[in-house]
Amino acid sequence: MSKIDDVMKDLVIANRILAREDVVDAYGHVSIRHPDKPNHFFLARSLAPELVEFEDIVEFGMDGQPVRDEKRALYLERCIHAAIYEARPDIHSVVHAHAEDILPFGIAQATPLRPVIHSGSFIGANVPVWDIADKFGDTNLLVTNMDQGRDLAKCMANNNVALMRGHGFASAGRSLIEVVRMSVYLPRNARALLHAKQLGGEIKYLRQGEIDARNRGYSPYSTETWRAWEFWATKAGCAHMLTKPDHGHEHKKS
Amino acid sequence: MSKIDDVMKDLVIANRILAREDVVDAYGHVSIRHPDKPNHFFLARSLAPELVEFEDIVEFGMDGQPVRDEKRALYLERCIHAAIYEARPDIHSVVHAHAEDILPFGIAQATPLRPVIHSGSFIGANVPVWDIADKFGDTNLLVTNMDQGRDLAKCMANNNVALMRGHGFASAGRSLIEVVRMSVYLPRNARALLHAKQLGGEIKYLRQGEIDARNRGYSPYSTETWRAWEFWATKAGCAHMLTKPDHGHEHKKS
Amino acid sequence: MSKIDDVMKDLVIANRILAREDVVDAYGHVSIRHPDKPNHFFLARSLAPELVEFEDIVEFGMDGQPVRDEKRALYLERCIHAAIYEARPDIHSVVHAHAEDILPFGIAQATPLRPVIHSGSFIGANVPVWDIADKFGDTNLLVTNMDQGRDLAKCMANNNVALMRGHGFASAGRSLIEVVRMSVYLPRNARALLHAKQLGGEIKYLRQGEIDARNRGYSPYSTETWRAWEFWATKAGCAHMLTKPDHGHEHKKS
Amino acid sequence: MSKIDDVMKDLVIANRILAREDVVDAYGHVSIRHPDKPNHFFLARSLAPELVEFEDIVEFGMDGQPVRDEKRALYLERCIHAAIYEARPDIHSVVHAHAEDILPFGIAQATPLRPVIHSGSFIGANVPVWDIADKFGDTNLLVTNMDQGRDLAKCMANNNVALMRGHGFASAGRSLIEVVRMSVYLPRNARALLHAKQLGGEIKYLRQGEIDARNRGYSPYSTETWRAWEFWATKAGCAHMLTKPDHGHEHKKS
Repeated sequence: MSKIDDVMKDLVIANRILAREDVVDAYGHVSIRHPDKPNHFFLARSLAPELVEFEDIVEFGMDGQPVRDEKRALYLERCIHAAIYEARPDIHSVVHAHAEDILPFGIAQATPLRPVIHSGSFIGANVPVWDIADKFGDTNLLVTNMDQGRDLAKCMANNNVALMRGHGFASAGRSLIEVVRMSVYLPRNARALLHAKQLGGEIKYLRQGEIDARNRGYSPYSTETWRAWEFWATKAGCAHMLTKPDHGHEHKKS
Repeated sequence: MSKIDDVMKDLVIANRILAREDVVDAYGHVSIRHPDKPNHFFLARSLAPELVEFEDIVEFGMDGQPVRDEKRALYLERCIHAAIYEARPDIHSVVHAHAEDILPFGIAQATPLRPVIHSGSFIGANVPVWDIADKFGDTNLLVTNMDQGRDLAKCMANNNVALMRGHGFASAGRSLIEVVRMSVYLPRNARALLHAKQLGGEIKYLRQGEIDARNRGYSPYSTETWRAWEFWATKAGCAHMLTKPDHGHEHKKS
Repeated sequence: MSKIDDVMKDLVIANRILAREDVVDAYGHVSIRHPDKPNHFFLARSLAPELVEFEDIVEFGMDGQPVRDEKRALYLERCIHAAIYEARPDIHSVVHAHAEDILPFGIAQATPLRPVIHSGSFIGANVPVWDIADKFGDTNLLVTNMDQGRDLAKCMANNNVALMRGHGFASAGRSLIEVVRMSVYLPRNARALLHAKQLGGEIKYLRQGEIDARNRGYSPYSTETWRAWEFWATKAGCAHMLTKPDHGHEHKKS
Repeated sequence: MSKIDDVMKDLVIANRILAREDVVDAYGHVSIRHPDKPNHFFLARSLAPELVEFEDIVEFGMDGQPVRDEKRALYLERCIHAAIYEARPDIHSVVHAHAEDILPFGIAQATPLRPVIHSGSFIGANVPVWDIADKFGDTNLLVTNMDQGRDLAKCMANNNVALMRGHGFASAGRSLIEVVRMSVYLPRNARALLHAKQLGGEIKYLRQGEIDARNRGYSPYSTETWRAWEFWATKAGCAHMLTKPDHGHEHKKS
């Protein structure tokens, strides 16, 4: 029970960090897979992430529906989360957001988004662009059912991020801390690449071996990763909610 | 009477949100049509929107003149509002502002501003550029009489937004919440398009069917729309002024 | 005496506004001509503008030297002010700053900075670029003596702004409120032009007749101008220092 | 002893300034050489710079190892500092950071980063780009041992700044105040150059004679330099920690 409480507290922190770091605004959401029931996940009720509190966290099943009776309004696009958890047993946390600086890469077709800075390595060498219109024609661009969610998950395949044309992105990580970090650095990497293109000449992307080396060294509770998580939580005003990993082993990356 | 008070409170909130979201600064204004007297509208006296209070709201007629004796200074450009209400019975709320990132699209002639992100869909497929010089020659660029306001409204026609060359934009909505939202996303859509152009290659604009689909689903008091309104009001420090739609039906979109 | 106090208080407000609006940072300064002694002007001692208080204002002569015994450190570049007041009896206030977004226009030679937005009209149709190296060769780029100040004033001629290559700008106004406003809108106009250039195609600059029309209508205590001054002073935390023009006529534009 | 306390306090201020001015975020660090033991230097333990306190400062030797028993986690990349102090006896302070706007110049190969604004002169005429892959192949891009640190120092040679491809920069100064100032202006100079390139035409870089003239005039406790240091410390909330140079001569540039 206390373990689940900690997971839910971490999810509140993640909401606040993503808001403070301009990844989400009124829209966008972050979820975490249930640590004991892999077919369940936690996600806030329909609320701007900056305003999310402990009581706003709801438990969902793989069909994107709440597992308990729930009268409060829910995010329309919760199928994004359900479909990615369904397709990817390796994934424990998902973000969907509209961070402004990644949008151009889903709109313009000439320049694929790829990692150019070391902190952007976790987005992976390949960031596919999913266009909802390819399969579903004229929609309101929102992912509102499992069919659409599964099509997005299929486009993402084994990558960590998929851009959604004219809309935003979905990112998937092995842990909550990883997916938050990836989502914070995604727009920064996008800006660095946009500006590098403007300077002209050949672009030096991260090499596959560099991406692999960074990936091998990654751990959500390493000193370096925790440093950012702690700092961001402090900036977001919720340092008091932090569960330090050395106070127990419950949150160790599974 | 209480209904009118709520309308005026909502207008104060709209002023503060537009200021907090960088759509207006010292200049720019937002109005709402009188819910019972369609030939009247409410607009603040001459004041920076961030500073507008309940007492600063003034009632105007279709000639752009206050309907009651008014000694306080008024916005020079209130004819923008009067002329759009006159021409467009479907419109219940109007914004005029100088948001910086839309300005280039009124200055450069090569790239029309069109929706490229789903949250930008409400600006509509066509955003005409009105050049005051075309009909009025050398002016101070301000819309200071009904002739000029009507010419702008004519250029806007049945669209939701008109850019004003070297000056700013006017936007028109079916409700206050809609026009505020549209005005917040207008510069974001402009930035996404500017940066997509810089990346090069073909631009994927929203399809007409997508714009229509989003338009059909829009309601100012839907969960999704209210979420942003509530969040923005909270950021702007006026959450306490919010009138929740479930406390009554006065504000239902007419 | 009270009149001079008001002038000095206005100068403190101007310092704080320019800091709050990102025109100055640790560097940059603003001065006002003495209302009774046209050969004197007021300027702060060497201090970041955001930190300037009433007691920090110093009175200078046309040689750029303080008129009273002064032990505190002074701005190195106060000759910019002295030389412009000397050359331009019509000018009552001067700003020198390094606002980042005007710098590219002094560095790149292809695109002259010209007004493209109505609020940028006061910079005037022609913004010359002064290169200190043209006459003085290799310097530290600072204007540290009257010779250099006079050369800058000569380049500015009857214009309102001169860019200083690789350094910043000097702007000159008929009143303190005018020069502050012009200096706030100068970088905004620069950004609008930079982005318009990126969109491509023909640029619609303000027409000479438009610049003239706006100039004719300008008054530092008009409703519109005062609205911005009051708003900016409020944002900068010094609304309490405002001297409202209707409380007396001392500040009327001379 | 009190002198060392002052040095450590200055280092805390430097951490806070670099955070406040957006040069560092969760990552990045600044060090200062021990004033009496040139083979030692001070650097914080592993912590986001904004959170660094007096107690977090650790003393290191030229091997990048703490000189006293230390149980707290340390920055992985402290060899950057050790290697530069080893190679450059003239250097008394080092910064390593990832400031976003310098990244494009390490990624794109066409435009070398060079000073274009007077406040950028201290980066020097030549800013080499170090690519860790050239000698070390596929790494996680971090400088984690003395071999890598020395290779970076060798690339930096007698320059003041080296960009690190896909990662950030290292800067080296004759004093703490100099290196902080240089690191604050480095991204500003980068933005000015990026935007000047976008305007097109010939770029006027600072001339070698200008760089030299500014360099000759530089002193960390000159009125002008201290003005920025004091202002930045005030903005960063640590004005109370300032040690004014006129309260003693301990900090005079050595």
